[in-house]
Amino acid sequence: MLQNKVQFNLTDSQLAYLSGFIDCDGSIMAQIVSRNDYLLKFQIRVSVVFYQKKRRQHFLTQIQNEIGVGTLRVKPDGMTELTIVGGNTVIALLKKMQPFLRMKKKQADLVIKIIEQLPLTKSLSKNSIENFIKLCQIADQVAELNDSKNRQITALIVQETLKLLNDSFTNKSESF
Amino acid sequence: MLQNKVQFNLTDSQLAYLSGFIDCDGSIMAQIVSRNDYLLKFQIRVSVVFYQKKRRQHFLTQIQNEIGVGTLRVKPDGMTELTIVGGNTVIALLKKMQPFLRMKKKQADLVIKIIEQLPLTKSLSKNSIENFIKLCQIADQVAELNDSKNRQITALIVQETLKLLNDSFTNKSESF
Repeated sequence: MLQNKVQFNLTDSQLAYLSGFIDCDGSIMAQIVSRNDYLLKFQIRVSVVFYQKKRRQHFLTQIQNEIGVGTLRVKPDGMTELTIVGGNTVIALLKKMQPFLRMKKKQADLVIKIIEQLPLTKSLSKNSIENFIKLCQIADQVAELNDSKNRQITALIVQETLKLLNDSFTNKSESF
Repeated sequence: MLQNKVQFNLTDSQLAYLSGFIDCDGSIMAQIVSRNDYLLKFQIRVSVVFYQKKRRQHFLTQIQNEIGVGTLRVKPDGMTELTIVGGNTVIALLKKMQPFLRMKKKQADLVIKIIEQLPLTKSLSKNSIENFIKLCQIADQVAELNDSKNRQITALIVQETLKLLNDSFTNKSESF
């Protein structure tokens, strides 16, 4: 179960508008990032991002005030991003938007699935590792749906790394 | 008064979604086009356009079925457009979307104003011509809000053309 359940008080009209926005100028992402301090060496970073040109930044500020979360960033290319991260927050928002999303509904479904199953990947047990690799494969599907071009770490890389880690772990155990 | 009043039976959620879509991947336009068969030689063509990549064309088809109007066109650059034209249709749609639009709300307000006042521009009277030029100036404002780059005819061109037309008309009258 997820802790610190996040609540969004948004009307259906607000959620539908935000869904139309995300479908066109947004992203629903699951990125695999390297995390040496993590037990499984990787993290699946989930996010919802609203994009807009800098001169329309105040519309993103409006959305930020409306939903009450998110970080606004101005990029060097003249674009502004409003990024919502964190499993609890992203799942709460996506579950509210799910009925209204159209073009990015698949991404939402998959990211929700990832967040729901992340608690099953918190140890170095065989099951936990296998579950984590499966979730990384789902993250690959999300990236594919997004035509993601800058992807660096795929499920295969995670699998290979964790295999090595597991081998060294097993060898160490056997050496006792 | 407008004839043939068009009705859209859309829920607030549908309208809010479509507004989010139009705000990001859409256009609300008023283009001045040359029309030799028109009394005032020009027409203000109003339209609402939804854009999407060709491989997501079926989402535009879905919108077309939902709103019950519009023409779908595949462009050579791999984009698809769903275009809604005609004063009666456009004003009915924009008035429904008006409460939900954010980034293109100004364009909607101005295009509605143009359509409402077009009936006052149906003759060659001085008033009618003046009204028409004012509406062309509003069309210029809409184009400016849209960062329109391919604009060919502006209010100034209309004004110059109608001045010439009016002069020749006045001269002819005087020659009787």
